[in-house]
Amino acid sequence: MNTELPRGVAVIGQSGGPTAVINQSLVGVVEGLRSGLHAAGVVTKVLGMKHGVRGLTKGEFHDLTGTDQDTLDRLAATPSAALGSTRDKPDAAYCERILDACRDHGVRYYFYIGGNDSSDTCRIVSEMAAARAYDMRCFHVPKTVDNDLKENDHTPGFPSAARFVAMACMADFMDNISLPGIKINVVMGRHAGFLTAAGALARRYDRDLNPWSDQVSTDGPQLIYLPEVAFDLDRFAADVEAIYAKKGRCHVVVSEGIQDKNGKSIGATLIKGGQVDAHGNVQLSGSGALGDQLADFLKEKLTPAGGKPPRVRADTFGYVQRCWPDASPVDSREARRAGRFAAQLALAGERSGSVAIERTGSGSEAWLGKDNGTPYLSGFKRVDLSAVAAKTRHMPPEFIQGHNNVSRAFIEYCLPLVGPLPGFERL
Amino acid sequence: MNTELPRGVAVIGQSGGPTAVINQSLVGVVEGLRSGLHAAGVVTKVLGMKHGVRGLTKGEFHDLTGTDQDTLDRLAATPSAALGSTRDKPDAAYCERILDACRDHGVRYYFYIGGNDSSDTCRIVSEMAAARAYDMRCFHVPKTVDNDLKENDHTPGFPSAARFVAMACMADFMDNISLPGIKINVVMGRHAGFLTAAGALARRYDRDLNPWSDQVSTDGPQLIYLPEVAFDLDRFAADVEAIYAKKGRCHVVVSEGIQDKNGKSIGATLIKGGQVDAHGNVQLSGSGALGDQLADFLKEKLTPAGGKPPRVRADTFGYVQRCWPDASPVDSREARRAGRFAAQLALAGERSGSVAIERTGSGSEAWLGKDNGTPYLSGFKRVDLSAVAAKTRHMPPEFIQGHNNVSRAFIEYCLPLVGPLPGFERL
Repeated sequence: MNTELPRGVAVIGQSGGPTAVINQSLVGVVEGLRSGLHAAGVVTKVLGMKHGVRGLTKGEFHDLTGTDQDTLDRLAATPSAALGSTRDKPDAAYCERILDACRDHGVRYYFYIGGNDSSDTCRIVSEMAAARAYDMRCFHVPKTVDNDLKENDHTPGFPSAARFVAMACMADFMDNISLPGIKINVVMGRHAGFLTAAGALARRYDRDLNPWSDQVSTDGPQLIYLPEVAFDLDRFAADVEAIYAKKGRCHVVVSEGIQDKNGKSIGATLIKGGQVDAHGNVQLSGSGALGDQLADFLKEKLTPAGGKPPRVRADTFGYVQRCWPDASPVDSREARRAGRFAAQLALAGERSGSVAIERTGSGSEAWLGKDNGTPYLSGFKRVDLSAVAAKTRHMPPEFIQGHNNVSRAFIEYCLPLVGPLPGFERL
Repeated sequence: MNTELPRGVAVIGQSGGPTAVINQSLVGVVEGLRSGLHAAGVVTKVLGMKHGVRGLTKGEFHDLTGTDQDTLDRLAATPSAALGSTRDKPDAAYCERILDACRDHGVRYYFYIGGNDSSDTCRIVSEMAAARAYDMRCFHVPKTVDNDLKENDHTPGFPSAARFVAMACMADFMDNISLPGIKINVVMGRHAGFLTAAGALARRYDRDLNPWSDQVSTDGPQLIYLPEVAFDLDRFAADVEAIYAKKGRCHVVVSEGIQDKNGKSIGATLIKGGQVDAHGNVQLSGSGALGDQLADFLKEKLTPAGGKPPRVRADTFGYVQRCWPDASPVDSREARRAGRFAAQLALAGERSGSVAIERTGSGSEAWLGKDNGTPYLSGFKRVDLSAVAAKTRHMPPEFIQGHNNVSRAFIEYCLPLVGPLPGFERL
């Protein structure tokens, strides 16, 4: 045991949009502390911040020191942030108050579960504590359905949300075949297209027929629009029209974060009077406006002269995609282990760090089968907070195909993460 | 065996909005025919209409006579209408063409799986055939997520959609606690509020604490607005404000079909330029407009003078609620049996009829447990087509509590249908 470990309270916070597995990470940290620093008498109490730094600065906590394991197990399997979350993005003055609160409560171990904004808060607090010579160990546990954290193969929360998007697209594509028309599904992800791209996993039928084919799928969704590729309304209409002309239907997945070649958000362009949050972002989730505007645009654009407009519908998957209670088994396990790993970093005497997921086994058995493929495996490593903080990872070019599709490489990346998908039959 | 049974082809069609279990009913009819009239050599072929009456009149069929059982089993477990569906609402001339097509193809057994519009088509065709002295046996198999068919305890498709709505509300309520604000979820159901009411099953926490209590739940959703109760915008704002003032959050479920005291649709009032379908209905699904308009209304109404608007979000569950691939086990079984029962009616020599579900065991074990409650049981009966055709069943008064809630009786009615719901834990 590192004898320099400071004795005191450990706090855990959850921040940003909740996920289906963020409570796994919470419980992972608690378990890691229990078997480690708390068992050793170094951590005296384990407190959960109510609504992240907002509750911390007000001294509002859930005491998790003695919570029984049965409750923890049920909590872990419950979607959304059990401690309460926050969208506060602390400035320097706010971070001062965070540090003051930590001193007041004798906090020596600070765990923050969240995305890139949250890791930045963690970094600032860590640096501020060091500058004041207050020995507080600060650890960030990754979480985001957007999958946009640097240094990570993928992030806890993403596989479960991707599972929802894949299953929703699978089922909705069957609906689209049944009652043909043009269907647009809008998926979360302001800057990174990973979650939208997961819609491609819905192409079960074609893929099963010829799993090694790189040909463009005729199975839905036929068109996938990512924030990483400049979106052009006229080209969009032409893409849809070409498929609609051939099949009498078209199944489209669009990221809420699509933007034009100048980086201007299509949502912000089409939606008047959108709300802006504390991070300066236009509100895209919790509204069906982008999908409706795109649908109206297509109806107008694709109505033949003197003819009937095509049947166009838009659904915005909304908050259920981040908290649907059927988490990916891989995601549940990894989120739990990420929390435990953070506690182990503290036990090992690290002063700060962010937990990152590495893929150590490709998981090719997800598409090649057990006899020919290799199992999916992952491990964890520590990276500097500054390597993750306030940075955004985008879909790499090799995951993108053309301006309206994802590559086979993306499917191979994503498929092992989401857990078993149902098998559908078609006549 | 009834010796008067005409020898010929059996056709099966699927009509209206697809569901998670409509293919169970399709397979049920096929199985019922195979072991009955087809085995007896009375039914010579089993044909599936491509896109319902639309394909029938064009002579477009899937031949299901020899489809192997493995394929049928996989089809049955696949959501949406495998034969293709249609929204066509045949007039007299169209029905003539249906009858002509049936004569042309030697059809003697006509099975139509659908809702109240579809049962009306079935009735007209049946009466027309009788008037022309063409011996064709016409059977309607119930299907609708709206649960609005007369004579039925509930209809296949509803329990699975209700399961989705309940789980979505459960998960989304956890999200709402985590990041507080006002959240509106818009649920399908143009005329009947059953599916919206299923949101009440999300109140797991309160209900588990005191399952026999009739007190208004503080657990979400706190407010439920049905098409059966006149909706008043100002009263709505007051309802939300009262809960928001007390809790800093409010979780609301609203039917897409809410209407004012004059029967005018709130959706149609708020949405300009809505699309109208062949049945004369304003398009409510496949658009987030109602939710967004209600959210904008609340933001404006509940912003304190000179203050910040509350955080209001709206999600419209959209098409996934009718085809989510996690069907209620009760629903899957009943939909299959309803199809088989229709084939058995034909075998028994009935000339026409609609299959209706009766509840024969209350299913109180769903809330009282196995030791104290009774299992859920159901049976099937034949009713006249005219008893169901083009009629709409609404939420009965005993299922409604006040102007913004459902009763304990509704929960007891609905809970046994949806299958096991996950157990969530809260701190």
